[in-house]
Amino acid sequence: MSSVPSVAVLGAAGYAGAIAAALVHRHPELELAHVTARADAGRRLADVHPRSRVPLTLEDFDPDRHGTVDAALVAYPHGASAPVVAALRDRGVKVVDLSADFRLRDRPTYDAWYGEHRAPAHFGTGVYGLPELHREAIAGAELVANPGCYPTAALLGLAPLARAGELADVVIDAKSGVSGAGRGATETTHFVSADENVLPYKVGAHRHTPEIEQELGRLGAELRITFTPHLVPLAQGELVSAYVTPSSAVDADGLRALYAEAYAAEPWVEVVDGPPGVLEVRDTNFCRISVHADPRSHRIIVFAAIDNLWKGAASQAVQNLNLMLGLPESAGLA
Amino acid sequence: MSSVPSVAVLGAAGYAGAIAAALVHRHPELELAHVTARADAGRRLADVHPRSRVPLTLEDFDPDRHGTVDAALVAYPHGASAPVVAALRDRGVKVVDLSADFRLRDRPTYDAWYGEHRAPAHFGTGVYGLPELHREAIAGAELVANPGCYPTAALLGLAPLARAGELADVVIDAKSGVSGAGRGATETTHFVSADENVLPYKVGAHRHTPEIEQELGRLGAELRITFTPHLVPLAQGELVSAYVTPSSAVDADGLRALYAEAYAAEPWVEVVDGPPGVLEVRDTNFCRISVHADPRSHRIIVFAAIDNLWKGAASQAVQNLNLMLGLPESAGLA
Amino acid sequence: MSSVPSVAVLGAAGYAGAIAAALVHRHPELELAHVTARADAGRRLADVHPRSRVPLTLEDFDPDRHGTVDAALVAYPHGASAPVVAALRDRGVKVVDLSADFRLRDRPTYDAWYGEHRAPAHFGTGVYGLPELHREAIAGAELVANPGCYPTAALLGLAPLARAGELADVVIDAKSGVSGAGRGATETTHFVSADENVLPYKVGAHRHTPEIEQELGRLGAELRITFTPHLVPLAQGELVSAYVTPSSAVDADGLRALYAEAYAAEPWVEVVDGPPGVLEVRDTNFCRISVHADPRSHRIIVFAAIDNLWKGAASQAVQNLNLMLGLPESAGLA
Amino acid sequence: MSSVPSVAVLGAAGYAGAIAAALVHRHPELELAHVTARADAGRRLADVHPRSRVPLTLEDFDPDRHGTVDAALVAYPHGASAPVVAALRDRGVKVVDLSADFRLRDRPTYDAWYGEHRAPAHFGTGVYGLPELHREAIAGAELVANPGCYPTAALLGLAPLARAGELADVVIDAKSGVSGAGRGATETTHFVSADENVLPYKVGAHRHTPEIEQELGRLGAELRITFTPHLVPLAQGELVSAYVTPSSAVDADGLRALYAEAYAAEPWVEVVDGPPGVLEVRDTNFCRISVHADPRSHRIIVFAAIDNLWKGAASQAVQNLNLMLGLPESAGLA
Repeated sequence: MSSVPSVAVLGAAGYAGAIAAALVHRHPELELAHVTARADAGRRLADVHPRSRVPLTLEDFDPDRHGTVDAALVAYPHGASAPVVAALRDRGVKVVDLSADFRLRDRPTYDAWYGEHRAPAHFGTGVYGLPELHREAIAGAELVANPGCYPTAALLGLAPLARAGELADVVIDAKSGVSGAGRGATETTHFVSADENVLPYKVGAHRHTPEIEQELGRLGAELRITFTPHLVPLAQGELVSAYVTPSSAVDADGLRALYAEAYAAEPWVEVVDGPPGVLEVRDTNFCRISVHADPRSHRIIVFAAIDNLWKGAASQAVQNLNLMLGLPESAGLA
Repeated sequence: MSSVPSVAVLGAAGYAGAIAAALVHRHPELELAHVTARADAGRRLADVHPRSRVPLTLEDFDPDRHGTVDAALVAYPHGASAPVVAALRDRGVKVVDLSADFRLRDRPTYDAWYGEHRAPAHFGTGVYGLPELHREAIAGAELVANPGCYPTAALLGLAPLARAGELADVVIDAKSGVSGAGRGATETTHFVSADENVLPYKVGAHRHTPEIEQELGRLGAELRITFTPHLVPLAQGELVSAYVTPSSAVDADGLRALYAEAYAAEPWVEVVDGPPGVLEVRDTNFCRISVHADPRSHRIIVFAAIDNLWKGAASQAVQNLNLMLGLPESAGLA
Repeated sequence: MSSVPSVAVLGAAGYAGAIAAALVHRHPELELAHVTARADAGRRLADVHPRSRVPLTLEDFDPDRHGTVDAALVAYPHGASAPVVAALRDRGVKVVDLSADFRLRDRPTYDAWYGEHRAPAHFGTGVYGLPELHREAIAGAELVANPGCYPTAALLGLAPLARAGELADVVIDAKSGVSGAGRGATETTHFVSADENVLPYKVGAHRHTPEIEQELGRLGAELRITFTPHLVPLAQGELVSAYVTPSSAVDADGLRALYAEAYAAEPWVEVVDGPPGVLEVRDTNFCRISVHADPRSHRIIVFAAIDNLWKGAASQAVQNLNLMLGLPESAGLA
Repeated sequence: MSSVPSVAVLGAAGYAGAIAAALVHRHPELELAHVTARADAGRRLADVHPRSRVPLTLEDFDPDRHGTVDAALVAYPHGASAPVVAALRDRGVKVVDLSADFRLRDRPTYDAWYGEHRAPAHFGTGVYGLPELHREAIAGAELVANPGCYPTAALLGLAPLARAGELADVVIDAKSGVSGAGRGATETTHFVSADENVLPYKVGAHRHTPEIEQELGRLGAELRITFTPHLVPLAQGELVSAYVTPSSAVDADGLRALYAEAYAAEPWVEVVDGPPGVLEVRDTNFCRISVHADPRSHRIIVFAAIDNLWKGAASQAVQNLNLMLGLPESAGLA
């Protein structure tokens, strides 16, 4: 009998799911038992995503067959995820859900942004899976709602200011690589459309907005944010540029000390002096943050760079899974 | 009464068609009368392709409505083009067809590579539209078959050697930007698939192979070529690298003289010393060629760079149209 | 005797200078008389920048030889430009200067951001060359200071709000292609550094900041802006995303009407509904603008997209030159 | 006393050197003792190359200080490497040299292609470090000459045919990402030059030519090859497309069987059916190979894809080091 927990990765044919499956497959203390997909069932994952080098064959999800694992990472789209998570939870499987279905705490807000929830009995039972903010709750959770990519970078970048009561107002301008738009082949994701282009999208209407506001509120900063994502011509990588109006006059030294202290013990957050480039965190679980005072305009500028598919999705899911299973938090992520 | 010929561009929602429409729209001696599309009818071309800045609305093709123009550029896919061209020709419209439907002269060869021809009465009535090789015939033609992008670069690169009887054998290794794969959103054209990648495709099976062989044969070089295209991560641009086994020992000076003389009078072929980069001909009708002797292996190496959507499609179509209509060959192309 | 004005382009080996030279060379009502460069003198411009296809040879600047033209476009770096412009002006040559040396009106501000001015006798004699704001003054000017790329996009994007008294506060987050960093080969401009990266730079310290503030002030909006540029992996293109706190409650319809009216007669400003991508204006003199109300945060969001080397530099310089010489404003730009 | 071998990485500020240092740093059975650089001494490696996350400080090379390690990876340029390797070897340090200085076996050939050798006493003492061809010799070597990136892909792709006596003639057309041109900032490596471009270089004159010929000769194929590299717009990745004239008629099934058998036991060579894209091996030690018969032209086409900085340099060096030190060949590479 093996003492290594068995894990299923559902939705492993998507970009984040494939990386999650590869991380579990190579993880020294986990066993990848199953991979599922909605459209590519029957194909080997290593054929769909050669870089994953996962030799398992994608299957249609079957709750009886796949519900026997110890834990599951679910990377289905919003809406499609909820009933699958419910089926797994009903069988006692620990779940990290990468969709938005269990991130929000207010049901009307969820329904307004995503449509009617498809597993209402489980709504609100998840722990918000940002380990740097909720490590203990995650460790005791049965269901973790893995944060969205933009919220991950935005919250890590703004949490020290929010906790310090300095977040009077904020504009978040975000830039993301094309993998953030998913594996679906569309006019937007066509190489000829995205190459040599920069394109704002979902202006004033991106679904990560209420998620960021909810979590900032829990940190003490109740406010309406302005959040605008832009598509930039690279595959993976995400930068959040946050322009903060502080509640009081804060100087550069104080800011640096605030951030250095906030993340001194965090293995996956790097506070750096200069502004970080997204390439510096490519294919890693790191979030790189710099904070700057702008004495001319009395604003604070914060940059937070992550890999949208890693810390923004797959590797953060594994980080959460490690916590839930009592494993070293960074196991399988280095 | 206007003395300016009226032109319809069919298939203007595709990459090549949109550029063809824009070139005709800005052409000082042509009037763009209609633009058609199979899937985007009802949309303004300038909305589908902002860079075209063509204010006309795309329509479904109607032979009675659109068959009253003086000339048409047809940019429909292979197979779909033949019946449309037939309808236009039956109404006396001069046509430049950008598909492969009228390029080949041997019916069994066409059928073997493309399937049964859909306008057999017109098969073989087109003139092969490479102005540098067939200028006079084009000027007198009613139907011109615009060459494929790879044949354009390959034939311009190899014609001087073929005519000189020096083309004993050739390997053609070609690299093309992603626009060559068309506007269809597929796994191959997804940014995340093409970015940071180089991918050979249709190995030993690309449909431009018989077209290149046919035209080399007309130049006196009857041979079976090896032709392999590769997808590279750029939007537009195509490089043909041709490795020639010559019939006799040719020295570098003789080669340079042969090419300089061959293209001395050509406005759109530039013979250069160093190997050309595809960026040098981006968004132009130019073909840049360099020729090199490799004394170690006794091979001749020829590079030919074009923009696959311009000299490889749209601008060459306008060059042909100019010839057919008795206009200055370079009108509207500078 | 020719009635076509003769033009010299100084600094034609740089990215903007080469495009300026090519535009003048192809201009139907101008003659390109000379091209100069500081480092590449002796080389043909077409060899340094093949896409320019300008057959002239770059020369060292000689005020006596080159000061006989009717007009000059000067594309030297800040600091290096001032004495050259002075030499040309002293010989009566009309000048469009692409550097920052004559943009600012306050000498201490110039000195603080750029160092001591090198032609103080001429400081303040230039007209700020944004035709959409200062068309008449440009038409009567002997010296025009061509705006910086970021100010061009920012001011065109914000002018309607500034004039309407609605610009209470603004955060400007800008994204630029790598050509904006100039032709110098550095660690930052190395392909491997810029590829797949997004990198903020000169945080709180970019020299275009006082230029934007000066011109907003002339439009009635005296304020300190927050301005942060980011390097994105593309060659040409620039997007300004401006987050405006308005003075009053403005609704979406009113905003659209404000912008539509402001630019109804402008040939090179396109007001569009959706957010513009920079690819839509590549290689053109166009600025594309969209304006959005964000009812949640009560902010106004404005996007302005230009090609940093065209409307942000070279083609705007030609637009200015046309005005100064009494030519049609759009001559040579279509 | 530690039983873990200590390793110095010389030239760790270059692209390959930095990856080599990171691989050694994370290696479970090696200790990274020193990193040196010629130009960046005094900086932390993690600051020069953030992705390396190696906290050591780069030093000037000092044979007395750095010659006490058990082994060294030397990533200095050709010519600069030889005397450093000699100094290390004279102190008994096992060396994997990533330069070309010890790859060639014929001194006049070396001098003709690289200039006079700078450590002639050591010339010819190295073992050619392609583990798939020379595993046993490498395991017993004190000095291993790590192959060039192009020879690695070309030889792995052609070895089965060479051994089978089927390599009558070959044209090698190679495509490489820009990191292959090194970290030096030049006009060629400038983003604006390389982006959207494909550029052949060193036509008929690339220094990897004699290295490929030497090793093919050792496999039984004495011939002069045609070899042409091309720069393509991506950071890392290399594809060799080899066009082989076989000695006899070989069918597709026989070819596949030949390759499958040749590499059945190799952990880092993957024989695949379809042509491999370079993205499939990015950031790995894998070489992916496909082989195709072209019945029309009677040629064999072989594709071999590697990451030029990994299997083409750094990770292959670690693979060699593992063999030399008696460690598991794949330790630290997964």
